[in-house]
Order: sequence, then structure tokens, then C-alpha cells
Amino acid sequence: MKTLAELAALQQLTYQGSGDVEIHSVGTLEHASKDQISFLANSSYTKYLKNTQAGAVIISQEVAGQYSGNALIAEDPYLTFAYVAQLFESLKQKPNQEKAKIHSSAVIEMPETLDESVAIGPLSFIASEVKIGAGTVIQSHVSIGPGVNIGENCLIKSGAKIEAGCHLGHRVIVHPGAIIGADGFGLARGSDGWVKIPQTGVVRVGDDCEIGANTTIDRGAIEDTILGNDVRLDNQIQIGHNVIIGDHTVIAGCTAIAGSAVIGKNCLIGGGAGIVGHIEICDGVVIQAMALVTHSIKKPGSYSSVSPLQPTKQWQKNAVRTKQLDKMARKVNQLERKLND
Amino acid sequence: MKTLAELAALQQLTYQGSGDVEIHSVGTLEHASKDQISFLANSSYTKYLKNTQAGAVIISQEVAGQYSGNALIAEDPYLTFAYVAQLFESLKQKPNQEKAKIHSSAVIEMPETLDESVAIGPLSFIASEVKIGAGTVIQSHVSIGPGVNIGENCLIKSGAKIEAGCHLGHRVIVHPGAIIGADGFGLARGSDGWVKIPQTGVVRVGDDCEIGANTTIDRGAIEDTILGNDVRLDNQIQIGHNVIIGDHTVIAGCTAIAGSAVIGKNCLIGGGAGIVGHIEICDGVVIQAMALVTHSIKKPGSYSSVSPLQPTKQWQKNAVRTKQLDKMARKVNQLERKLND
Amino acid sequence: MKTLAELAALQQLTYQGSGDVEIHSVGTLEHASKDQISFLANSSYTKYLKNTQAGAVIISQEVAGQYSGNALIAEDPYLTFAYVAQLFESLKQKPNQEKAKIHSSAVIEMPETLDESVAIGPLSFIASEVKIGAGTVIQSHVSIGPGVNIGENCLIKSGAKIEAGCHLGHRVIVHPGAIIGADGFGLARGSDGWVKIPQTGVVRVGDDCEIGANTTIDRGAIEDTILGNDVRLDNQIQIGHNVIIGDHTVIAGCTAIAGSAVIGKNCLIGGGAGIVGHIEICDGVVIQAMALVTHSIKKPGSYSSVSPLQPTKQWQKNAVRTKQLDKMARKVNQLERKLND
Repeated sequence: MKTLAELAALQQLTYQGSGDVEIHSVGTLEHASKDQISFLANSSYTKYLKNTQAGAVIISQEVAGQYSGNALIAEDPYLTFAYVAQLFESLKQKPNQEKAKIHSSAVIEMPETLDESVAIGPLSFIASEVKIGAGTVIQSHVSIGPGVNIGENCLIKSGAKIEAGCHLGHRVIVHPGAIIGADGFGLARGSDGWVKIPQTGVVRVGDDCEIGANTTIDRGAIEDTILGNDVRLDNQIQIGHNVIIGDHTVIAGCTAIAGSAVIGKNCLIGGGAGIVGHIEICDGVVIQAMALVTHSIKKPGSYSSVSPLQPTKQWQKNAVRTKQLDKMARKVNQLERKLND
Repeated sequence: MKTLAELAALQQLTYQGSGDVEIHSVGTLEHASKDQISFLANSSYTKYLKNTQAGAVIISQEVAGQYSGNALIAEDPYLTFAYVAQLFESLKQKPNQEKAKIHSSAVIEMPETLDESVAIGPLSFIASEVKIGAGTVIQSHVSIGPGVNIGENCLIKSGAKIEAGCHLGHRVIVHPGAIIGADGFGLARGSDGWVKIPQTGVVRVGDDCEIGANTTIDRGAIEDTILGNDVRLDNQIQIGHNVIIGDHTVIAGCTAIAGSAVIGKNCLIGGGAGIVGHIEICDGVVIQAMALVTHSIKKPGSYSSVSPLQPTKQWQKNAVRTKQLDKMARKVNQLERKLND
Repeated sequence: MKTLAELAALQQLTYQGSGDVEIHSVGTLEHASKDQISFLANSSYTKYLKNTQAGAVIISQEVAGQYSGNALIAEDPYLTFAYVAQLFESLKQKPNQEKAKIHSSAVIEMPETLDESVAIGPLSFIASEVKIGAGTVIQSHVSIGPGVNIGENCLIKSGAKIEAGCHLGHRVIVHPGAIIGADGFGLARGSDGWVKIPQTGVVRVGDDCEIGANTTIDRGAIEDTILGNDVRLDNQIQIGHNVIIGDHTVIAGCTAIAGSAVIGKNCLIGGGAGIVGHIEICDGVVIQAMALVTHSIKKPGSYSSVSPLQPTKQWQKNAVRTKQLDKMARKVNQLERKLND
């Protein structure tokens, strides 16, 4: 529990209303109760502010002028909410459960090399020559291949697989079912069929990265696949071999990035997007959901490619015309010439 | 084994031909043998009816008039086929194999709380404070997090992971590799990088739902992610945090639904589709394969967005014109004005 | 280690420069060191040839004329590189680690039936009535369902699940997290909700296939889902029930193929593509990335459907016009008639 005044002091912010109101957790404007703090960061939720039951609300200076309830005044209410939510989350942690321990059902090839602050969950497997940094927690059914190097204070969740030789930085979170370091898709056409190219690189993940559930990051073919620092990948993403992703880039779910693509820093890549191989995207690019990037992008900004949604009957009439577009354009040009004569 | 007459009686339907023919299983019109029953539900398979070797066929009244073989007459042959196939499937079950049991290699933190009718497969992990309903079967390599609540007669297949605190209703099937309750993708931009928003909600799945192989359903950020009753999800689907999906909605493989989207009841959502966050889709909406839904839909009906397939050479000519469409439309309007003058 | 002359002899190729140069591994033109061999297969990398530090380079006859360094002359440098890389990879294998063995933590229902050359990794589960061919290696956390039949010299990687009754040929590689034989998505609409169609077929995978990480291949509804020989599937692919895929077909990541689609031989299917159900694609078809195939294809060649990427501001102007295309086309035809009068 924290009072509003305590929260304000911790966040070095001012507040309005009663500083003594006791806050136990976070809630939404619509459903928060008196002992919860909520936030307003998206103007489409302003309608819920008036009647919120929240004990306090995190709002901007502008909004505060129109709101008479208890409030924490923040320049960026969403960011402040993130910090406050993290605070309450940390208070929830029960120390006994979090005590580092190696579950007796885990299979560890070289247990003597593990730091005593490392926790290994039930039925996980740690191969030989693995290094795991202090404070790292490995949950159940995780497999860590030989020679893997994991930094400090990482969290490797249930069923994740980290293949031979891969490196993770510090404070990396790998969500359930993610696979880091599977073979890249490398084939040469032989006379009798496909010949597999051995994938001898690894995956190198920087500090503070997050790898989503069931996301796959392939190991490099010769050199490595590389994620910078603070790269955030959502679920079900596919990262091909030898891809390089710059610091602070965020990628939404189900996006696929083909081999050897180089993505800049501070990019935002929409869900279900596709990026073909061997191209470069500069820093600060935004790719909208389900867009396909088929060429390098050298200018920051937002890019789109998907056709807009239509009722299927209307779509049918218009879609058939997209196959006649070149013909139509030529006809229009002809008409123009004719009219100008 | 059932005779055609017995099947008809069980389904409360009439039959034509010999009621004594013995049926042991189901088959396709094209390949069924004399001891199998087949069905005709899709007119494109009518060509196989004439020469089918099936011992009996499930057909509609209309088709029955043109077919002289043994037949079970059904209003909806596909639905009747489903019931008949389920019947033969249930007859196949060998009682000894299905006996409830806890495999000795499973790790169960509180075994004393498990109902004796619950089966836990090899190498699965059941955390503390878990409730599992009578008759539920958990296969191998499953991880059930602390505080999870699973209803009766569920089937949790190999390698599925159900994270802390999530709820499943009765008769839910979770297919291999599915992940229920991984963290949603919530980040606020701080001065030094991304700040993670703790994901403190859970996932609530209603009765009679099916969650496909390697599908991921994220836990809510503050409140919960919710699936109604009889929601059917195919494989490799991504459901973002705080999504709500109505009863009887069916979603095909590889579809991605972003956070806080609300999907109505009785919707059919095509494979590989995308639905952006914070929008609402009303009941009875059909989204065609790979369509991207970027705004709320308030009217039932079918919606599409994908450009039609073309030979690549033809596509190249037309695609370049899609980038000049606005210019072309203005030119056409100009020509029209000129011509009208 | 091999000398350039030895490599040339093994590959039955000629070389130029010093045959005595000792090669220990492969590298890229840009970063290879003196004891590595590199290759030039893509002309966009020609710029790196001049300054490469590689001890030798695999190049074509034409390129060899312009290069004075040590070189292995190949008709298809990429294919030769594949063979050379495989050779060095095989030399790396440490015989002691590769010795066949059954890990003590594996759960094997009928251990007496396993060939002594089979290796089973930690915490894997092998159900009853399973056949595994000589030389096959099964890694950790793998689940092999009852009645599964796996050929010789296969590699089943960490966390893969092969469901009851499925068949794999020889030399098949199943990458981590892949799921072979989950239920197909078969539902009939009943009066109270969806009725599940039992999925009683299996998956049959031919020889020399590769199944990517977290890829899912559904079992057939009545008959089987079938992959021919030398079919190569990348990661995160979804193959629906009763799909048939011809020999040597290669499918890139995140592609979804709906039920009962039949794909020919020697097809190349781009990443993130979609193929609807119940259609046929002939041999030798190339589907570009993220294209949606909605009808059968009877002519070999390349097919595309995705709209080209544009800056979002430009896209907004053009996209709105795609919804008016039919209207525009009618107007153009009207203007043409008017002008011709």
C-alpha cells in the first residue's frame, strides 16, 4: 500500500486532492475501486473520467484543470502509470516463493557451475558449458543448449528453448514457447534436391530485450543474428537468419522478417508485417500493420501497403478493376491526348 | 460397429436401402470401403457419389432421390456426419488406456488436491493452488501455473502452457504447444528506453472452447482477456491482451488480434486476418482470409481487403498504378469537367 | 582442416592459386579470415571480393577470370559452398558427444523396442508402439505419441511434438517446437453450437523433409495430410488437414495453407503467404511473399497479390481510391464513349 502523497514523492511529481488516500493496486478508469489508482492517457477514454470510482487518477496538467478528484499530475501519464504499476507489482512479490532454487526434477549437466542465486524450474534441462548470470530465473520445461550464455536477472519462461551457443544480455525476458537459435532456412538447389546449408552462427540478444511467446529467432548461417538493446518482440514473430535489429525497436505480433534484413533503431513495426530479405530499414521507421516491405527504406517515417477493408460485395467489384489498372491508366492517358488535340 | 438402421435410430433419422449393412468407421466418398459410411455435403464432390464403395452415405433428401444405394437421410449431412464420426471415435476408445492416472514423472506441487478422475501425463508440471475439474486429461510436457482453474472434462494436450491464474471452463480442448496467459505486449516510452507495463490480468476461457496448436492468448494488462463459450481458435493465432471474443465465434489459423479489440458472437474470421486494437466488431461478421480490419464494424456481413492474385508480370504493371491512383482519379475528374464544358 | 587442393578433389572441381592453403571453416567474403573459405553467389556481394581476407573463395569460371586469389571454380558456387560447409560441419562433430544414448530422465513406455543406435534426450517422452529408425536422434522435451513411426537418421529437436500415429520418412529434421499431427480444424454447425469432427487421419512426411521451428502440420480429418520427399518448411507455418504437398516444394516462414489444398512439386511459396482450402496448385509455381491464393493455379510461373509499400500519407490518398475503382472505371468508359461520339 502507498498513499497518493507517497506515490507522488516516489515519482517526484505533484498531486491534487487528498494525499492520504490509500492505494493498493492499479485499475482502469471504468472499473477501478476506491483503493486503486487509474490513468488517462488516451483521449477516447476521457468519457470514463467523470464517473470513475478510482481513489486517484494519473493525468496530465491540462486534464487536471478539469478534474476535481484526487490526481497525480504527470507529463506522460502512461509512463508514470507504467512505473506505478511496476511498483505495486513489486510489492506483491512474496519473498518466500521467489527464493532462488534448483528444482529437483531439473536436469543440469554441470550443476557445480551455477551461481547459487540462479533459479531453475521443474523439468528444465541445462546442457553443458552453459553460463547463467546471477539472479536469472528459469521456469519449467525450458531447454538451454550447450554453450549458451545468459546474463544477469533474466527471466526465461515456461517451455522456451535456447539453442546451442546463443547469447542473451542482462534483464532479458523470454516468454513461453519462444525459440532462440533454431536453424535458419538455408538451402542450395542440387541436382537431386535441396542441400542444407549448415547454420553455424548463433543468436546474440542485447540487454533489456523481450522475446514474445512462441516467437522464433533463427541462428545465423555463417555470422550471427543480432538484436540490439531494448528490442521488444511480441508473440509469434519470425526473425530469419542474420537479421540485425537496432536498439529500442519494437515489433508487434506475427511479423516475419526474412534473412539478412537490417532493421534500424527506434523502429515500430506493426503486427503481421513482412520484411523481405537482404534489405535495410533506417532508424525511426514505422511500418503499419500487415504491410510488406519489399525494398530498403532510407527515410524515417510511416509506411503502409494494405488495401482498405470493404464489404465483400463492394470489394468484388473494385478488386476485379485492380487487375485492369494499367489498361485503365493507358486509356485515361489516351483520352487526355485526344481531348487536348 | 453399428448397422445403418441402428445409426438412423440413434440420430432419429430415416434411411434408405439395407438397414442391416454393418458400419465400422467413416470414410470419404472417393476412398470409403464397404464397412464405412461416407457423406455428401459439398456439391463439388457429387461426382464421387456414383462410384463410391461406401457401405452407406449420409445425404440430403434431394440427393437421396437420385441415389439408389444405402443412405442415411439428413437435413444437414455434414452435421450428421460429425455426430456419426464422434460416435465411431468414442467406440474406438480403449477403456484401459483412458483410465485416469497420474504419471510418476509428473511434478505436482499439491497432489492431495487433485480429483482422482484427473489424468496427468508424463513430465507435466502442476504448480500450487491449481484446481482441475473431474475427468480432465492433461497430457505430457504440460505446464499449469499457480492458481490456474480448469473445468471438468477438459483435454490439455502435449506441451501446452497455462500461465498463472488463468481460468478455463468445462470441456475445453487446448491443442499442443498453445500458450494461454503469457504477458500482453504493454510498453511505455521512457527517457532511456521502453518501460514494461506489468500484465496483471488473466485469461478467462468459457466452456466448450478449442485453442489451436501453438496459438497464444495473452493475459490482460489490468483486467482480463476473455473468450466466451464455444469459441473455436485454429492454430498459430495470436490474441492480444484484453481482447474479448463472443460465443460461437470461429477464427482460422494465423490470425492476429491486437489488444483490447472486442469481437462479437457468431463471427467467422478467416485465416491470416488481422484486427487492430481498441476496435469493436459486432455479432455475425465474416472476415475473409488475410483481410486487415482497421476500424470498428457495426453491420453484420462479409468484409474483404486483399488484392486479387495475378501473374507477377501482370501484377507489376498494375501495382505501380496503385501508387498513382489518386493522381489518376483527379485526371479523370478533370477530363470529365473538360468534356462537359 | 582441408587444403584447397583436397577440397577441390573432394568436390571434383578445379582450383586456382595455391592448393596448399589450409582451410578450417567457412566465412563471408566481408569477414572471413585466412583459414576460411568464402563464396560469391549473389552479384550484389561482388564488391567484397576485391578486399576479402578469405584463404580461398568459391567462384564461377567467369568471376575467376577477374580474380587473382585462391579459388575453387564451381558451376554453382552456392551449391558447392553448401557441400563444403557441410563437410566442415561434419568434421566439427565430436564423436563422444554424438554417441547414441538414452538419457535417464527420458520416459519411454517400451524401451525394449528401441534400436541401440537411437538417442533420446533428457525429459523426452516416447509413448507405446513407437518405431524409431536406426541413427535417429531425439533431443530434449520431445513428445512422441503412440503408434508414431519415424525413419532412420532423423533429427527431432527440442520440444517438438509428434502426435499419435504420424509417420516420418528417413533423414527428416523437425526443428524445435514444431507440432506434427495436432487436430485439424473441423467443425459442423449444430443447433446449440459447433460440433467437432473427429480428426482420424494422420500426417505422413516423406524422406529428407525439414519442418521449421514452431511450425504446425494438422492430421487429416478422415484421410491423411501428406508431405512428399524433400519438402522444406520454414518456421511458424500452418498446414491444414488433408493438405498434400509435392516433392521438393519449399515454403517460407509464416505461410498458412488451409485444409485440403493440394500443392504441386518444385513450388516456391513466399513467406507469409496464404492458400485457401480445397484448391490445387500445379508443379513449378512461385508464390510471392504475403500473396493470397484464392483459386487453383494450373500454369507454372510466378504469382503476386500484395499492394506495393508507400509512405502512409501517400498511401491514404491512394487507398481511398481503391474503394472507388469500379466507379472510376465506369466513368472512364463513359468519357470514352462520349469522346468517340
